[in-house]
Amino acid sequence: MTLDNMPYSLNSRKVAEATNEWLEKRGVKVEEIAELVMLLQSKYYPELTMEECIHNVKQVLKKREVQNAVITGIQLDILAEEGKLISPLQDMIKHDEGLYGVDEVLAFSIVNVYGSIGFTNYGYIDKLKPGILEKLNDKNDGHIHTFLDDIVGAVAASASSRIAHRKQAEREEELGGYPVRDDMEEIMEIEK
Amino acid sequence: MTLDNMPYSLNSRKVAEATNEWLEKRGVKVEEIAELVMLLQSKYYPELTMEECIHNVKQVLKKREVQNAVITGIQLDILAEEGKLISPLQDMIKHDEGLYGVDEVLAFSIVNVYGSIGFTNYGYIDKLKPGILEKLNDKNDGHIHTFLDDIVGAVAASASSRIAHRKQAEREEELGGYPVRDDMEEIMEIEK
Amino acid sequence: MTLDNMPYSLNSRKVAEATNEWLEKRGVKVEEIAELVMLLQSKYYPELTMEECIHNVKQVLKKREVQNAVITGIQLDILAEEGKLISPLQDMIKHDEGLYGVDEVLAFSIVNVYGSIGFTNYGYIDKLKPGILEKLNDKNDGHIHTFLDDIVGAVAASASSRIAHRKQAEREEELGGYPVRDDMEEIMEIEK
Amino acid sequence: MTLDNMPYSLNSRKVAEATNEWLEKRGVKVEEIAELVMLLQSKYYPELTMEECIHNVKQVLKKREVQNAVITGIQLDILAEEGKLISPLQDMIKHDEGLYGVDEVLAFSIVNVYGSIGFTNYGYIDKLKPGILEKLNDKNDGHIHTFLDDIVGAVAASASSRIAHRKQAEREEELGGYPVRDDMEEIMEIEK
Repeated sequence: MTLDNMPYSLNSRKVAEATNEWLEKRGVKVEEIAELVMLLQSKYYPELTMEECIHNVKQVLKKREVQNAVITGIQLDILAEEGKLISPLQDMIKHDEGLYGVDEVLAFSIVNVYGSIGFTNYGYIDKLKPGILEKLNDKNDGHIHTFLDDIVGAVAASASSRIAHRKQAEREEELGGYPVRDDMEEIMEIEK
Repeated sequence: MTLDNMPYSLNSRKVAEATNEWLEKRGVKVEEIAELVMLLQSKYYPELTMEECIHNVKQVLKKREVQNAVITGIQLDILAEEGKLISPLQDMIKHDEGLYGVDEVLAFSIVNVYGSIGFTNYGYIDKLKPGILEKLNDKNDGHIHTFLDDIVGAVAASASSRIAHRKQAEREEELGGYPVRDDMEEIMEIEK
Repeated sequence: MTLDNMPYSLNSRKVAEATNEWLEKRGVKVEEIAELVMLLQSKYYPELTMEECIHNVKQVLKKREVQNAVITGIQLDILAEEGKLISPLQDMIKHDEGLYGVDEVLAFSIVNVYGSIGFTNYGYIDKLKPGILEKLNDKNDGHIHTFLDDIVGAVAASASSRIAHRKQAEREEELGGYPVRDDMEEIMEIEK
Repeated sequence: MTLDNMPYSLNSRKVAEATNEWLEKRGVKVEEIAELVMLLQSKYYPELTMEECIHNVKQVLKKREVQNAVITGIQLDILAEEGKLISPLQDMIKHDEGLYGVDEVLAFSIVNVYGSIGFTNYGYIDKLKPGILEKLNDKNDGHIHTFLDDIVGAVAASASSRIAHRKQAEREEELGGYPVRDDMEEIMEIEK
C-alpha cells in the first residue's frame, strides 16, 4: 500500500496523545481517576494498589472508542465555555440540563466496551460525585464540564470492570486453573 | 387482512397481563417499585405523591420492550431456582456471578426506552439496594432473583425518567409556555 | 413554583423547533426520511401510506432524546465544516473516519428509544444508503454530514419500529382483541 | 486468598468451553461465522484471508461478555424447542416474534464490546441473512434459533470491528508510524 491510496490517514498515536493532553488541560489527572477506581473496588479487593488502579485507567484510555468519546465530549464542553454553540444547545450544555442526555450517551459508549458489569458502578459514582467528580461539578469556577464529569466517571467504571475481569483470572490461576486470557485480560508488556 | 395470513398472532394483552402476574408471583408489588421511584425523585420534586409514582411505574410496565425483559428475566430466575439450566449458566445465575452481566443487559434495555437520563438512577439504586431490592437480594429465602432485582431497579429508574420529562412539561405550562407533548409525555386517559 | 427557583429554564418548544429548523437547513426534509421508512416497511405493510410514514417520523422527532442527538450531531458537522474543531477531532469528523464511532453512538441513542427491534433496520439502511442518505454522503458538495447521515438513518429506523408497534395494535383490534395501548402506541390527537 | 473465601467460584475455562461446545451442538462452526466476516470485510481488505477471519472470530469468542450472551441465548432457544417456557414467552420465542427484541438486546451486548463501528455491520448482515444465518433461519428443520441467529450475526460484526482496528494498526506501522496497541489490538501469542 502506498500513500497514494490514502488521501487521509488516521494517526492513532495522535488521537491517544490528544486524549491524554486534553484530559490534563481540563484538569483531570490519571491519578484522580484512579482514586475513583480505588473507591469503587477496594472493598472487593482489599489488596488493590493505587499502582494497579493507575495501570488500569491507562489501559482504558488506550481504547480508541474511549478516546473518541473523551475528545468529543471535551470539545463540546470547551465550545460551550466559549459560547460558540447554536441555541438551544449552548444553554443545555452550559447549564448541564437534566433532560439533555448526550453526555450520558457518550459516557455509556465508554462503559459498554468493558461490558455490562460496569453499568452499576458508573451510575453509582455519577450520583455520588466523589473526588475529582465533585471538583468538575463545581459550577463556580468558570469551567463547563457537562460532558467531562460523566466521561471521567465512565472511565473509572470501565477500569473497575477491567480489574474485576483480571482479578478473576488471577484467582483462578492461584487455584491451579488455566483461566482463558481473553482480549480483555491479556498481559500488556509495553505501556506508553 | 384475514386470519389466513396469520398462523401465529401476538396477543399484546396477554403479554401485559403475564408481566403483571409474574411480578406479583415473584413477590414484587407495583407499590414497592413506586417506593424506589419516590426515593430517587422526592428531593427533586418535594410535592411528588405516591399516586404519581405508582402511575408512572404502571405506564413503564405497559411498554412491550419492558414486558419482554421482565418476562425473560423472571423465566431465567425460575429455571435457575429449579436447577434446569445448562452448566455453567446454572451456576452463574444461581450465584449472581459478578462477571455474568446479562441481567444488567436486560435491565438496560428497559432503561434505554426512557432515554439516557435514567442511566445514573439505575446504577445508583442497583448499588444501594434499598427497599424491595434488598428483599430480592436476600439469598437465604430459597429464591433466585438474579435478573429480577436488576429489572425492578431499571423499571424504577425508567419511571423516574418519565417523571422528569413530565414535570418539565408541567413547569413550562405553569410558566405560560406551550411544551411539546411528545410520545413520552402524552396524557393517558385510560389505564388498565 | 416561581421564576426565582429557576435561574435557567429549558424551553422544550425551542428545542423541538430548533430540531426541525436545523434538519431543514442541513438539507433534510421530513418527507425524505419518510421515504426511507417506506422503503424499510412497505414489504411488511403493503398498504402503508406516505402520510403514515410522515406522521411517524414527526412523532419520533418530538422525542427530546431524539432532538438532543439531532442538534448535537448537526452542531459537530457544522463545526467540522467550518474547520473549528480541535485536532485530531477535526480530521476524524471531516473525513468520516471509520474508526470514529461517536456518530453511530448518537444514532443509537435515537434507535434505543423505540426499542431493540430497530437495531437491524438502522444497520441495514446505514449500509445501503438509499435516497437522502446517498445525498448526505456525497463528499463533493462541500458539506460534512458525518453525524447527520447516521442520525437520519436512526430516525427512519425508529419510525419503522413505531409503525411495527402500532400496526400490531391495529391488527389485534381488527381481530376483536383489546390491545394494550402503551406510551408508544397512544393516539396523538394534536400535532405540531 | 484461600478456598474458604470462595463458597462458589467461577471457572472461566468451563464457560469458554461451554460456549464453543454449544455453538457446535447447535450447528454453528467457527468457519461459518468467519465466512460472514469475509463477506462483510473483503471489499475493504481484498487481501483478507479466511485464516485471519477465523482467528478474529475465535478472539471475539474468548470475551466473557460474548460467552455469557451466547450461552444464555442458546439456552432460551433450547427451552423453546422443548416447549418448557412460560406462556406467552414460549410463543414469542418459538415464532421469533417481531416485537420481541430480547434476542437483539443480547446480540447488541456482544457488538458493544467492540465498539459502535460494529452497529452497521450487525444490522446489515441480520437483514440479509447470508450463509449460516439463512440456515439458522430455516423454520422447517424443527430447530428454534431465535437468539442464535442474531448472536452469530453479532459475533461476525464484532470480528469485523476487531479486524478494522487491527488493520489500521498494521497500516500505520507500514507507514512508519507507531500505532498505539490498545487492549483491542494486542498481539495474542497463545491461542486456545
